[in-house]
Amino acid sequence: MKTSHLSYVAGGGLLDRRDFMKRAFGYSAAAAAASATSSVSAGTIADRMPPWMTALGGADAAYGSPSAHEREVQRLLKFDAPQTAGMTMWHTPLAALQGIVTPSGLHYTVSHNGLPDIDPARHELLIHGLVRQPLRFSVERLLRYPMVSRIRFLECAGNTAFNAVSPLVEDHSCQELFGQASCSDWAGVPLSHLLNEAGLKDGAAWVIAEGADGGSLTRSLPLDAVMKDAIVALYQNGERLRPSQGYPMRLFMPGWEGNLNVKWLHRLEIAASPAYSKDESGLYTQVLADGRIQRFAFAMDVKSVITHPSGGMVLPDPKGFYEISGLAWSGHGRIARVDVSADGGKSWAEATLHDPVLDRAFTRFSIPWRWTGASTLLLSRATDEHGRVQPARKQWRNRYAAHSFNHYNAIQAWRVNRNGKVENAYA
Amino acid sequence: MKTSHLSYVAGGGLLDRRDFMKRAFGYSAAAAAASATSSVSAGTIADRMPPWMTALGGADAAYGSPSAHEREVQRLLKFDAPQTAGMTMWHTPLAALQGIVTPSGLHYTVSHNGLPDIDPARHELLIHGLVRQPLRFSVERLLRYPMVSRIRFLECAGNTAFNAVSPLVEDHSCQELFGQASCSDWAGVPLSHLLNEAGLKDGAAWVIAEGADGGSLTRSLPLDAVMKDAIVALYQNGERLRPSQGYPMRLFMPGWEGNLNVKWLHRLEIAASPAYSKDESGLYTQVLADGRIQRFAFAMDVKSVITHPSGGMVLPDPKGFYEISGLAWSGHGRIARVDVSADGGKSWAEATLHDPVLDRAFTRFSIPWRWTGASTLLLSRATDEHGRVQPARKQWRNRYAAHSFNHYNAIQAWRVNRNGKVENAYA
Repeated sequence: MKTSHLSYVAGGGLLDRRDFMKRAFGYSAAAAAASATSSVSAGTIADRMPPWMTALGGADAAYGSPSAHEREVQRLLKFDAPQTAGMTMWHTPLAALQGIVTPSGLHYTVSHNGLPDIDPARHELLIHGLVRQPLRFSVERLLRYPMVSRIRFLECAGNTAFNAVSPLVEDHSCQELFGQASCSDWAGVPLSHLLNEAGLKDGAAWVIAEGADGGSLTRSLPLDAVMKDAIVALYQNGERLRPSQGYPMRLFMPGWEGNLNVKWLHRLEIAASPAYSKDESGLYTQVLADGRIQRFAFAMDVKSVITHPSGGMVLPDPKGFYEISGLAWSGHGRIARVDVSADGGKSWAEATLHDPVLDRAFTRFSIPWRWTGASTLLLSRATDEHGRVQPARKQWRNRYAAHSFNHYNAIQAWRVNRNGKVENAYA
Repeated sequence: MKTSHLSYVAGGGLLDRRDFMKRAFGYSAAAAAASATSSVSAGTIADRMPPWMTALGGADAAYGSPSAHEREVQRLLKFDAPQTAGMTMWHTPLAALQGIVTPSGLHYTVSHNGLPDIDPARHELLIHGLVRQPLRFSVERLLRYPMVSRIRFLECAGNTAFNAVSPLVEDHSCQELFGQASCSDWAGVPLSHLLNEAGLKDGAAWVIAEGADGGSLTRSLPLDAVMKDAIVALYQNGERLRPSQGYPMRLFMPGWEGNLNVKWLHRLEIAASPAYSKDESGLYTQVLADGRIQRFAFAMDVKSVITHPSGGMVLPDPKGFYEISGLAWSGHGRIARVDVSADGGKSWAEATLHDPVLDRAFTRFSIPWRWTGASTLLLSRATDEHGRVQPARKQWRNRYAAHSFNHYNAIQAWRVNRNGKVENAYA
């Protein structure tokens, strides 16, 4: 490729996608990369026969598994050893994934009290409080109700908390920083059906949701929003919920912070005011810069991250061509645009959003890039359909107390060093 | 619920969804079902404490698994024992799933020569034939290319073959009949990028794709369509392809019959004419009623199936309320509507299509239903955005020779017997 004729759309090597796609991208990129063979002479076209082509292959299984060669693609445990359970956080390997769906085996999970082993035949959902008729629902009964399904992200309030509080840890990877966000096809019964059946009494304003885990994680949600959006989820990515996602049922409230989506859901109390449970008055409040407490920050804000390249990766090829690819999401609606900078924010270009762009779901973005070989900062900045834009880190920090870390959604920077190593950075 | 005031939209008990959703569906449904407790008296609201609420829960794993209580939800093996491999067919348990995404572990797979255990470091894709520059692509190299992702169904040409040929087997389930269709988020490199890089020569009209399995499954695809739609898929549902889906790479051609989506892809020959390989001149041709051969039937036709209720299920409650729910898809585009009949085709009502309705993807439909308690036939009939409609079984049969079974897409009937048992039927 004649690099002099490349169409740049911003500084630092960001390229025009349409122009770039017309060119013979890979060939010249690979020619520059010592690791890849590219062209073949006519004499070598006859393929050498690898051993797996000369014998009948192996057997499959009734429930399939990933390739043994991909064994390192797994969730990362933070904060606790699996032996002691309790408060555990498993992070999704976002940088190893493509598309928008997170496979259920790699979906992030935060559990406060370990994974309860619930017998579905003995589990019930109780709806009581300010209702005309308290109701119990067995799993079997709920499975007969009309269902809806929705491809939606889920994100822990504390995702990317490490970057919310100083000091910078340069070797934090995308999985460590952003891995408490995932996206699945969630299916279940609209909670409005069940609450209408119980019959709401005057004064009903809050729903207090309790999990059946040891410790009973409990959160309060405003009734209006619940009637509009909440489902009692029974399925994730087609199959029944997994234990770490609340088997046999969880509350699912699209776009709202993860812990409000109460897992192992067994009780919904309709009330006039919130419970102010330990789970909402403690860990999941935010402290503003002036010391006031911001309670009940429900929706996760507009956010994005470049997953390729990202922290811990090494670019093999100075002056090579790369696809910058990442994910954007907003708890308020659809992603409208993502801008990318390859020069630390001096100039920006609009990335391509890949179909489907769904409400409160991961949205994949990408833009072609030719690395100049110099050290630089890669940034992404998402905007949602309501015009909400990711703030700079300083803006975010100015709003909150120094130790406050929930709902961090500032622009993420990855530093590309001259040796190709990619590191976490503050822009 | 006062059943005299129900709004019916067609015979056999099909109900108006908006009207129905306003009512207290579940309570009366459950009151009629002996298995489910429904209302609770004030004295029993205090929940009995199950054992999993009185102790810290267990540990999670780096790669999650389904609940042990859902162990029976697995793929069904047809045609061969796993020990001997060779031609195997694993069917997706569609009736146990919800939403539109099939988890990768339950995705259907048809393999002609077992599963090759391919070392990705030794695997290459060769592009040769009518190109200016033959090229080899290592896996590592392809992973650097610009990618797209698409939520798309995949269906074996022979899906539902049992019902294409007489006689009727009444105890065939949805999984046995329809389980060679699934839907995933597929990501990979548009093949047009790679072919443009190799440079197409005059006369190039076909792409001959060969797999690296023992036996080298080989199929020919017209170049125009490939340039428009094909990707070299490297990811399924976020993570890298699994061995049974062609690890480390497969051809993916949205909407086209499964075997054209060549797994373990290692060679693409650009040619002036098709290969007429054994895989396309034998098993995957169709014989018309007049004895002529219909070659190269690429796209899968518009099709649908009711998954709840479906063959093998037993309805617990005569005169009870149920949600009829199912899946529709078309290899030609989006689903435009699905009509459902609960009286064997005498009357039809339009089902609700659930978001998202995507191009060449599973689309979930549903409609509420009050069973009359009499024996009846449930049918679904899908129409795609191009006006293609599923034919009746007789229409389909009249077109093809008696032993022809590929691309069967006729309207499926489930008989509901008076005892609640649901069976496969011919309408």
